[in-house]
Amino acid sequence: MTVETTRICVINPNTAAAMTELIAAAARAVAPPRTEIVAVTNPMGPESIESHYDEALAAPGLLSVITEMERTDPADGYLIACFGDPGLDAAREVATAPVIGIAEAAFHVASMLGRGFSVVTTLSRTIGRAADLVGHYGFSRQCRGIHATEIPVLDLETNPLTGSILTDACREALRTDGSDAIVLGCAGMADLTAEVGHAIGAPVIDGVAAGVGLLAGMAAMGLRTGTASGEFATPRTKLYTGLPTNFGLG
Amino acid sequence: MTVETTRICVINPNTAAAMTELIAAAARAVAPPRTEIVAVTNPMGPESIESHYDEALAAPGLLSVITEMERTDPADGYLIACFGDPGLDAAREVATAPVIGIAEAAFHVASMLGRGFSVVTTLSRTIGRAADLVGHYGFSRQCRGIHATEIPVLDLETNPLTGSILTDACREALRTDGSDAIVLGCAGMADLTAEVGHAIGAPVIDGVAAGVGLLAGMAAMGLRTGTASGEFATPRTKLYTGLPTNFGLG
Amino acid sequence: MTVETTRICVINPNTAAAMTELIAAAARAVAPPRTEIVAVTNPMGPESIESHYDEALAAPGLLSVITEMERTDPADGYLIACFGDPGLDAAREVATAPVIGIAEAAFHVASMLGRGFSVVTTLSRTIGRAADLVGHYGFSRQCRGIHATEIPVLDLETNPLTGSILTDACREALRTDGSDAIVLGCAGMADLTAEVGHAIGAPVIDGVAAGVGLLAGMAAMGLRTGTASGEFATPRTKLYTGLPTNFGLG
Amino acid sequence: MTVETTRICVINPNTAAAMTELIAAAARAVAPPRTEIVAVTNPMGPESIESHYDEALAAPGLLSVITEMERTDPADGYLIACFGDPGLDAAREVATAPVIGIAEAAFHVASMLGRGFSVVTTLSRTIGRAADLVGHYGFSRQCRGIHATEIPVLDLETNPLTGSILTDACREALRTDGSDAIVLGCAGMADLTAEVGHAIGAPVIDGVAAGVGLLAGMAAMGLRTGTASGEFATPRTKLYTGLPTNFGLG
Amino acid sequence: MTVETTRICVINPNTAAAMTELIAAAARAVAPPRTEIVAVTNPMGPESIESHYDEALAAPGLLSVITEMERTDPADGYLIACFGDPGLDAAREVATAPVIGIAEAAFHVASMLGRGFSVVTTLSRTIGRAADLVGHYGFSRQCRGIHATEIPVLDLETNPLTGSILTDACREALRTDGSDAIVLGCAGMADLTAEVGHAIGAPVIDGVAAGVGLLAGMAAMGLRTGTASGEFATPRTKLYTGLPTNFGLG
Amino acid sequence: MTVETTRICVINPNTAAAMTELIAAAARAVAPPRTEIVAVTNPMGPESIESHYDEALAAPGLLSVITEMERTDPADGYLIACFGDPGLDAAREVATAPVIGIAEAAFHVASMLGRGFSVVTTLSRTIGRAADLVGHYGFSRQCRGIHATEIPVLDLETNPLTGSILTDACREALRTDGSDAIVLGCAGMADLTAEVGHAIGAPVIDGVAAGVGLLAGMAAMGLRTGTASGEFATPRTKLYTGLPTNFGLG
Repeated sequence: MTVETTRICVINPNTAAAMTELIAAAARAVAPPRTEIVAVTNPMGPESIESHYDEALAAPGLLSVITEMERTDPADGYLIACFGDPGLDAAREVATAPVIGIAEAAFHVASMLGRGFSVVTTLSRTIGRAADLVGHYGFSRQCRGIHATEIPVLDLETNPLTGSILTDACREALRTDGSDAIVLGCAGMADLTAEVGHAIGAPVIDGVAAGVGLLAGMAAMGLRTGTASGEFATPRTKLYTGLPTNFGLG
Repeated sequence: MTVETTRICVINPNTAAAMTELIAAAARAVAPPRTEIVAVTNPMGPESIESHYDEALAAPGLLSVITEMERTDPADGYLIACFGDPGLDAAREVATAPVIGIAEAAFHVASMLGRGFSVVTTLSRTIGRAADLVGHYGFSRQCRGIHATEIPVLDLETNPLTGSILTDACREALRTDGSDAIVLGCAGMADLTAEVGHAIGAPVIDGVAAGVGLLAGMAAMGLRTGTASGEFATPRTKLYTGLPTNFGLG
Repeated sequence: MTVETTRICVINPNTAAAMTELIAAAARAVAPPRTEIVAVTNPMGPESIESHYDEALAAPGLLSVITEMERTDPADGYLIACFGDPGLDAAREVATAPVIGIAEAAFHVASMLGRGFSVVTTLSRTIGRAADLVGHYGFSRQCRGIHATEIPVLDLETNPLTGSILTDACREALRTDGSDAIVLGCAGMADLTAEVGHAIGAPVIDGVAAGVGLLAGMAAMGLRTGTASGEFATPRTKLYTGLPTNFGLG
Repeated sequence: MTVETTRICVINPNTAAAMTELIAAAARAVAPPRTEIVAVTNPMGPESIESHYDEALAAPGLLSVITEMERTDPADGYLIACFGDPGLDAAREVATAPVIGIAEAAFHVASMLGRGFSVVTTLSRTIGRAADLVGHYGFSRQCRGIHATEIPVLDLETNPLTGSILTDACREALRTDGSDAIVLGCAGMADLTAEVGHAIGAPVIDGVAAGVGLLAGMAAMGLRTGTASGEFATPRTKLYTGLPTNFGLG
Repeated sequence: MTVETTRICVINPNTAAAMTELIAAAARAVAPPRTEIVAVTNPMGPESIESHYDEALAAPGLLSVITEMERTDPADGYLIACFGDPGLDAAREVATAPVIGIAEAAFHVASMLGRGFSVVTTLSRTIGRAADLVGHYGFSRQCRGIHATEIPVLDLETNPLTGSILTDACREALRTDGSDAIVLGCAGMADLTAEVGHAIGAPVIDGVAAGVGLLAGMAAMGLRTGTASGEFATPRTKLYTGLPTNFGLG
Repeated sequence: MTVETTRICVINPNTAAAMTELIAAAARAVAPPRTEIVAVTNPMGPESIESHYDEALAAPGLLSVITEMERTDPADGYLIACFGDPGLDAAREVATAPVIGIAEAAFHVASMLGRGFSVVTTLSRTIGRAADLVGHYGFSRQCRGIHATEIPVLDLETNPLTGSILTDACREALRTDGSDAIVLGCAGMADLTAEVGHAIGAPVIDGVAAGVGLLAGMAAMGLRTGTASGEFATPRTKLYTGLPTNFGLG
């Protein structure tokens, strides 16, 4: 690794700037020396992401963050810091550096720390999306359960009981599922990782931290998304109309 | 079934109005008596959908079509007429009637017409998305191959060789894959279904027609998307900012 | 679609004529305009189908119904109205129109109405067969549970508690499995579909109605079982001995 | 093991007595000392089994062989000697001894003799059924290919080239699939097992021999099909009409 | 089968000679006439195998038993009598006769005796390895649960409650899992097979007995591990240093 | 991250010291600042690992390296630098820091850099083990092919054509499999990663570098293998006999 600085762009796909701060802090806490974390808030979309609808509306703004950065000052890696990994495949098409989602990152790391892991998340309505991602990435055998605390995303920071509810849910998930590790199912839980891990005595994986580690490793190896099959090559130039930003490429 | 008319809304997720006409014609050709086809063009997004990026940018406009229709004159079924089934889960959250994607529709019908089917599509860069959907819906065993003609979506209508290239690709796919049926991998191929089927002597399934049949059946049974698990319940009310349309619900 | 009438043959694979009536009524209730339902009772086999043994003994008679109709007045679609889908692949070999089983039909429709569905059936000894079909058709992910009421098939109509037992079982299945929809696991439950659906407030799918919708759609598209791989081509001419009917083909 | 004789009933599901002889010889060649092979020809059904239709018509007669033997002189094990394993689950319900199909037997043995095996069979139209069984029994990973020689079942004995065609197909299958073993896909190939195995220098598994070994082992352990879940318990007593034999139980 | 004697080598992978006796007795109880059981204790490794670490340390000694026997007096089959099937693939490379593990043997036999089976084993820490083997061999569908009694391997013989604890656990497993058969998860339970089976009224499979039956069948057919793909060919000659035995081949 | 140094122990499971140097260099090239690489050669076992037999004989020595280091100066992470990931689960039981295998590491990283990857390895006899690991870790969908160059491990460094043979094989694998990335299937290829990647214009992943990145990330997060299910807890104390080293724990 050279003495140059590695820059990792961490994108908060919702529009809540406070959550971006929380995410940035979690990322910086684990970033290797000489790695800069650039944290960005999505300029358009929902204030929190708790449904398929929210994910769909968050994707264009999230992509505009990447295309803008690519035009001006490309990062060495992009992290999509929402547990539904919204827009991940699209982002891979437009970025020249690797792109990772935090659910993806957390699942990969958790699967190397024991036989099975459990996910503890916010609302039960998001379980389906998490289950889809588990299957899509290939972790059906390792993921033994997805559990909801029923705390909405934006209440995570304000609810004084978040820490204890989350700890109890994680402890119960370990026991019920016979798991060895816990994956936290929302970027907004990142600041509680150490507290919960200490309380339950088991590995607790926050996808933001996991993703920073993975991107730092990829940057050190000089890797980026492959384009040999054509799927992740730059999209063809065409007309995009009716959207608030110029999404045209090239 | 009563004498009332069933209304099926067929949405073209791209912004090309000519393609909407083609799709509407395919839908009307198979609609049962007393079934009205309402065809709508996406008001915002790409002029054709050939990448994950295009899909992500098409979803908000597509969803705005449904939420607008739900506010004014709800349909008895919604069909998303792009083979990547963009925005499908999100649409299910905001519609009070069933929602189907044309890839989904075509896979289901094809799987009941033989042991295996092959997909013949436009650009090879879209194969990955089609493969994801095959796996997601449970058709990994039945789908034996996905083949590209390398004809871009908007060239399908203008290229004088589309019919013969498509026919050759379908015939070859049947042979190579040992399949019994063909699924056409783009709504823009709908007008060629009969021609290709006649030429190759095997079932050729267009997802637009398949979807209309499925939605008509669901309407006759009085069925809509279930909300018992909460995943497809109406999304929670929240702030959506920076988008060209008011996406707020409720 | 032309003004000609579409004829769908609904076959009751057991020998109980009363059940054929019930099935015919369920089929007619959802048939599109200008679609005729021809309901036929199996002339040889068991009076109800509740075991692998019963299924094996029902198949020849069921096939004789199809071969006889093909010789005289071929239908535009055949529906096998027993939840074990007995003889389905064999029927596809001898029919010139599409053939669907009601388990197959119900699974396909249910999988498009939510993330997961539960099956509620008659005797627990039939669960294994239902599970085999779920796996065979590719719905292992979507089907979250198969539950028995322990009501024998022929008691469904006579037991005054059938409606309430079934409703309770469906409600409990939704809750336990976290499902969004219910599939009824016996053609003899078809007349209770609306009652149960109304009571539990979730989509309840009867395979007879689902199958009629699917076959009507296939007929409108002019589709039939593909024979390109040879598997579903007409069986080779040969000698069949010791059976009560001439099963020879050609 | 006691000095009593173990009796294994080998059933030829088709009506061709010459094939029963061939099967009986293959069974006797590998039967352990003090094991008697009782070979029986199906009294009703097709003269060869080469389609789903043939299988469906073979099942009742095959089951009548077992129920008759159970009434008079139950065997210690039953082997269904047709590669489609017709009527297997039904047979398990009515037999008090274990029942095995020859496809099942061959797949199990082959999977313990190398990483992958290939199946070489008669007509290509039977490949679908073999593939279904592979999936059903859990051998999707081990079975690497199913290949047809296009020799009809009844021509196996009369075609002077059967041996050389089969040998060539097996050798080619090993090479193409990267397999370690061959499964012969028809009971009528049993007499060629040694010849082919010698020629290609790899394990060649005939399901008849494999099944005899498995049943002898089960008999020595005193095992029979379990009925705890109820699925394989004796079917309920009921009326069976229109069939040439009394299929009533109890 | 000729009048020659078949010799099956049953290897106890741990160093406890008393357990070898127990295993040998179970093997002899089911061996066909004219089949000799040669029971051997591992000369190096742990006194019992209850972890991945124990398995890794047991493998070299276990392999030395086979290579030594191959040099002097090759057996007609080798059975690895520890439920983790340690060293199985390696053993296949160095033996000229078939090699089977007892977990593998038990799973295969159990899967032919009902729809689903349950495993009842010693310590819960071994469940992961058993689950891996279930998946590896293809029995994910048939194996419905793996249950621990928490009795350490070497206590099985000395704990006066072993029989009743095991019986209770097996009965409960059948009920909870809806299984038809039980697989005993440790060679040290072999002497309790009949007692437990009698008590619960369901098939109970001991892998030692199951393995002897499978190897006897393979020997009768003259089969051995295939080497066509090269994977199970004799390992290349090379230097092995630092080990207590000469592991060099050839 | 503190200013303390992170120590990662990279173990070469074979006894070839020259290969340890090569591996150490690859590890150091990507290690983050303030991360020390401790490279160790296995003191007992084969000089190269090219069979299941070699893997089994390599495991005890490999484990002795870890138990010795744990007794004296525990590392913050252990990397098993052989593509078969020998002894991985056992190592997790005895290490207090995370343990990763290089096949595992490479698969995880490759799966985030495109839709599919291909493995290019040494001898074809090792393909089976690689395929097992692919399935075990959950990458069956992403891994599209495993290809052998037929260069033995110890010839990689001496064969002047290794670079060009490997490059050609990687390029061909990309094309044949439609992959986006390449995984190198042997630690001995680590020094060729950049050369091959440059030549083929696609991401080439060496598991040694990938593993160092993953372990550095885990160390920054303070994570270690979870022991909640008991599977990866320290093995029970017991007697190990006949081995050249004292393998007793505690």
